[in-house]
Amino acid sequence: MTKTASIGAVSQGISTVTLDDVKAAHKRISPHIHKTPIFESHLLNEWLGHRVLFKCEMFQKIGAYKARGALNMLLKLQEEGRLPAQIVAFSSGNHGQAVAWACAKLGIKPTIFVPANSSAIKRTAAESYGAEVIIASTRAEAERRAALATETGAILVPPYDHDDIIAGQATVSYEALLENISPDAIFTPVGGGGLLSGTTITSKALNANIKVFGGEPVQANDAAQSLRDGTIFRFEQTPETVADGARTLGISERTFKYIRQSDGIFEITEQEILYWTQWVMHLLKVTCEPSSALSMAAAFRWLETQTEPKTCLVTLSGGNISDESYRLIWQKSYLESLPRLKAAT
Amino acid sequence: MTKTASIGAVSQGISTVTLDDVKAAHKRISPHIHKTPIFESHLLNEWLGHRVLFKCEMFQKIGAYKARGALNMLLKLQEEGRLPAQIVAFSSGNHGQAVAWACAKLGIKPTIFVPANSSAIKRTAAESYGAEVIIASTRAEAERRAALATETGAILVPPYDHDDIIAGQATVSYEALLENISPDAIFTPVGGGGLLSGTTITSKALNANIKVFGGEPVQANDAAQSLRDGTIFRFEQTPETVADGARTLGISERTFKYIRQSDGIFEITEQEILYWTQWVMHLLKVTCEPSSALSMAAAFRWLETQTEPKTCLVTLSGGNISDESYRLIWQKSYLESLPRLKAAT
Repeated sequence: MTKTASIGAVSQGISTVTLDDVKAAHKRISPHIHKTPIFESHLLNEWLGHRVLFKCEMFQKIGAYKARGALNMLLKLQEEGRLPAQIVAFSSGNHGQAVAWACAKLGIKPTIFVPANSSAIKRTAAESYGAEVIIASTRAEAERRAALATETGAILVPPYDHDDIIAGQATVSYEALLENISPDAIFTPVGGGGLLSGTTITSKALNANIKVFGGEPVQANDAAQSLRDGTIFRFEQTPETVADGARTLGISERTFKYIRQSDGIFEITEQEILYWTQWVMHLLKVTCEPSSALSMAAAFRWLETQTEPKTCLVTLSGGNISDESYRLIWQKSYLESLPRLKAAT
Repeated sequence: MTKTASIGAVSQGISTVTLDDVKAAHKRISPHIHKTPIFESHLLNEWLGHRVLFKCEMFQKIGAYKARGALNMLLKLQEEGRLPAQIVAFSSGNHGQAVAWACAKLGIKPTIFVPANSSAIKRTAAESYGAEVIIASTRAEAERRAALATETGAILVPPYDHDDIIAGQATVSYEALLENISPDAIFTPVGGGGLLSGTTITSKALNANIKVFGGEPVQANDAAQSLRDGTIFRFEQTPETVADGARTLGISERTFKYIRQSDGIFEITEQEILYWTQWVMHLLKVTCEPSSALSMAAAFRWLETQTEPKTCLVTLSGGNISDESYRLIWQKSYLESLPRLKAAT
């Protein structure tokens, strides 16, 4: 928390999310969400010579951790008596479902703007929670139309650029660290940076020795580039990667602030994403979004450099996989190449 | 149990597996296996207007319920001081892994005969548990060579035709029924009939009102044909179905005895298998073998005929899916067609 305060949040005009905010979020949303299980594969542990714990957010409401942030923001608005009649969001994926689900809990019918190339099943899911889904031509157009709606009184629930969203996503690692585990390092995927931000806030406040790393597609490496440059890098066009949750144009000032306090980001190739997507499904018997596999790919990269046995907490962020993605994931098999490390005997 | 005794088991020269045998098996294997969770999907319940509970055996050791039967047989041999130096089995799938895993627990290196067309990853899994895997030209040849080995002192662990295997598989439903659930009907896939036999024994003994049904591929419907004819029907060649766990040539006298006490078998089309494989993965975020989907397809068929809200226990038997199967499963998407029943409002 001291660290958080030290990097000049006020000068950026951005408030600081603290562990107390995370605890409040956890208390607020816990009655409505699942406490997700932590799994491990003894076979994988044996092959790696390390222990890997998987926080299984595919078992969260709507099949991804995004339910946490959206619900936290809305419940806080309700607490403060500021719940609007109209809620809008833009998303091609899990965040849209999360907003639709959270709004349904509060009896609000939200409007979700989705790009035309988003998958039909994800749109259907948002609609099944009672949302109005409006198809925009592109991601940028969806974003623009959602912003426009706020001019007539709607409140926008952004996918990551909001303190209450970050505090909500931070409950993933908070919930995990309440259990009797002592990870040396925690790993999350990086899209807009909300989950990595929340994980950094929680972990560093609870135990400064825990390392926190992100995994980001090398083909969508805006956060990694931002860290290298010391200033936010933004793509002009949606980057292409199989990890559809990480196709963001750029992180925000808000998430950048926390990401700088993490221990870094591993840039993951498409082949590594596919490799770990297959292996996580094979070893754990859970559906693993390609974006989720970024965490495990990052953990493997880190473990390759370790000489002593370590315990990793790998955040599997979600398990919503479209049929198109399934076909892409299994085009080529990586199961013949076992995930072993030389350190293991 | 009275029912079991009444159909003339002795005259067939086959002993009778009782609830006491199942309880003994449960006590014997429990320290070594997982108590698997029961999941449900609120969305599915809402769409169907019924409650469906899923017993998740993909989280069992080796990723399928088969670990239960194999371990029960071997531990019982050990208890009786009859554990041999040599164990053999024939299998193209989960049973081979189960025998390899169970033998590893007892410090025995088994020999598993597999047909040449079995998937490399399943062979690798058996080998990783320390088994010697020998590739035979066909399934029949694998079976013949395993039988031959028994002439020199090896003990064969059969996939279903053994009382201790049936008692072991019966612990799936026994374990589930120990929990606070009151299913109207229980559903299992049918291959050789070991799981359906065990489920029938347990359920009918604990509560005669519980219905027990099997789901079998219409393209591999030897058990359903046997029930219709009143005599065992056997395929001459391995039947073709995406449900690879159900590609057995025929049930045995032993399993037929118990299957006759079940409430029947639904014959499931390949399209229904693929439909439910996709939907179970989509709704529950677990990997679902096509064979597992047979249970849910059978439950859906039964629920279509019900006028009052019912609770079903659907046995998801395993989650080991080869890359070839993944490609087959997702060739065409069935996710646009929601699993709704008219009864639900």
